[in-house]
Amino acid sequence: MKEVTLKEIAQELGISITTVSKALKNYTDVSPKTRKAVLKLAHKLDYKPNSFAVNLRTQESKTIGLIIPEIVHHFFSSIVNAIIEKAEKKGYLVITLQSNESLELEKKQIDLLLDKRVDGILISLSNNTKTIEHLQKVIDHNVPLVLFDKITKLLNCSKVVIDDRKAAYDATCHLINSGCKKIAHIRGPLNPQNAIDRFLGYKKALEDNKITFDKSLIYTCEKVTFEEGYGFAKQIHTEQKDVDGVFAVTDPVAIGVIAYFNEVGIKIPQQISIIGFSNWFMSSVISPSLSTIDQPGFEMGKSALKLLLKEIKALKKHKEFQHQTIVLPTGVIKRNSTLNYFSKN
Amino acid sequence: MKEVTLKEIAQELGISITTVSKALKNYTDVSPKTRKAVLKLAHKLDYKPNSFAVNLRTQESKTIGLIIPEIVHHFFSSIVNAIIEKAEKKGYLVITLQSNESLELEKKQIDLLLDKRVDGILISLSNNTKTIEHLQKVIDHNVPLVLFDKITKLLNCSKVVIDDRKAAYDATCHLINSGCKKIAHIRGPLNPQNAIDRFLGYKKALEDNKITFDKSLIYTCEKVTFEEGYGFAKQIHTEQKDVDGVFAVTDPVAIGVIAYFNEVGIKIPQQISIIGFSNWFMSSVISPSLSTIDQPGFEMGKSALKLLLKEIKALKKHKEFQHQTIVLPTGVIKRNSTLNYFSKN
Repeated sequence: MKEVTLKEIAQELGISITTVSKALKNYTDVSPKTRKAVLKLAHKLDYKPNSFAVNLRTQESKTIGLIIPEIVHHFFSSIVNAIIEKAEKKGYLVITLQSNESLELEKKQIDLLLDKRVDGILISLSNNTKTIEHLQKVIDHNVPLVLFDKITKLLNCSKVVIDDRKAAYDATCHLINSGCKKIAHIRGPLNPQNAIDRFLGYKKALEDNKITFDKSLIYTCEKVTFEEGYGFAKQIHTEQKDVDGVFAVTDPVAIGVIAYFNEVGIKIPQQISIIGFSNWFMSSVISPSLSTIDQPGFEMGKSALKLLLKEIKALKKHKEFQHQTIVLPTGVIKRNSTLNYFSKN
Repeated sequence: MKEVTLKEIAQELGISITTVSKALKNYTDVSPKTRKAVLKLAHKLDYKPNSFAVNLRTQESKTIGLIIPEIVHHFFSSIVNAIIEKAEKKGYLVITLQSNESLELEKKQIDLLLDKRVDGILISLSNNTKTIEHLQKVIDHNVPLVLFDKITKLLNCSKVVIDDRKAAYDATCHLINSGCKKIAHIRGPLNPQNAIDRFLGYKKALEDNKITFDKSLIYTCEKVTFEEGYGFAKQIHTEQKDVDGVFAVTDPVAIGVIAYFNEVGIKIPQQISIIGFSNWFMSSVISPSLSTIDQPGFEMGKSALKLLLKEIKALKKHKEFQHQTIVLPTGVIKRNSTLNYFSKN
């Protein structure tokens, strides 16, 4: 089927192309009768306005760019879920790209999205993003930018995060309050802010509870996987027989820890307690079910999009926009991988 | 920062806008010296051609539309992963939408993508897609369309699938060959072709092995979840004490089955064997690890995109394009939820 043009509609109705165009735009200098006839025929022929021409006129693309480290990951796919669903409802389409934790790819993707003239960009940084010129460029181009989850504090733009330090503090206190005295931390890579913050929260919880920090109890993931959790559990079991609690940086890592201890017949939580981070949907399903921190992916996507659309709207109206940082609440989810306890208070 | 325009480059170099434009397009009637100066300044000022104007000229959007039932799903997120990664390498960006298993939403999304003038559409149908006019419209608009995984045979376009019937036949034969005599099937919903095909593969395997088909052994999922698997396992345990094998339509359902039998102390695979479908990454991690069918998500995304780009290219060159159906190979992955057996052959 050929594309239907304004010309064809004009010819069929015996009126000018200008009149057709005006009728489709609801201009008032076209008679209601003519307008109705044009709209009816346009509908019948399934006429589609050339979106490129519309874009050129409005200078809006009604698309948003989204860059995440990886899509095959429950937390990020929940975020993408929220963003594409809510964006569609507001009339925006979403171009998704994944940086695969590469700064180079992330830079290239920012350029692609700017070239594409997206109306705004949402990004969660790769673990290797140590420079921010490419992000500053987005701001310099006057394109609204919102960072979420993995952010940098160095940029003047809106952000949506959780308080990783507080959440990790709560997770560690949960282990301490349930009786753990020697707690290992399987942490994330050294660079990302959220891995640093979770480590600092763990350390602060020890301090506040007068437990000496012991750096030999820190194990550092490179890729933050189930397999690393399994491997570090084995290492803990060999090197640190008296560890009675493990705080893992994410649930998949914690599930690797559980798998190892299950395999060698060490009882969870009687002999060792495990707590994860993120409340991955598998965490309630494994045996024993995993105590964890609730990290609200869907909410995060929703909030980030909302902030971005607000800024796009303000920009369109040439209004000032005050950047915001939204900190979403988290909480400890108590399941069967940690002991019950009575609060000290 | 304001957008840099051709006019500004022209003014700064003291040449005409036309010359700047020609230089940027590498036209030969601009001297190499001038061209070099223009390119250098354009680069320095970070000049970006107006992509809307470029689109209007080329009538190509260099974007692809992708509609999937849901993104928070390991199989589909693997497919999206492959598509956005490979598309980017070929210079295409991907607009992703999810139908949430709703035909109405799917129809609306097809219209959105056509309005957006995407160069092609990739789609895996919702479970409720019983009519195909909206898909026929894509073809009528001369926009390349490729169906994958959940398809309809009624459309004349390229398709990428696995042979669900054969794969289910193999899964069921694996249970029979490992000694199972009474095998329940937890099937998918009644409408989608792949759920029908898996059911038919199961039935054929029974027939070929002279086991009478018993419809009381068929349990039908509505949402294909872990919870349904758990619930049906309970039902099987109550109603059909002598069932010694379960073939579940997907891995999450099978993992629900395992969770129930683990809980009530029924030994897998000694008392009952379980096989799933899809090779979800959690399947190798649970205890006992789950035997399953390898369903190649990444490969499927890659093949679907490749076919689409071929068709887009052919269309651009006004060449005939022969639609293809690619059937990707699958295989049984033997793990610990089924008994070992010696092949009959």
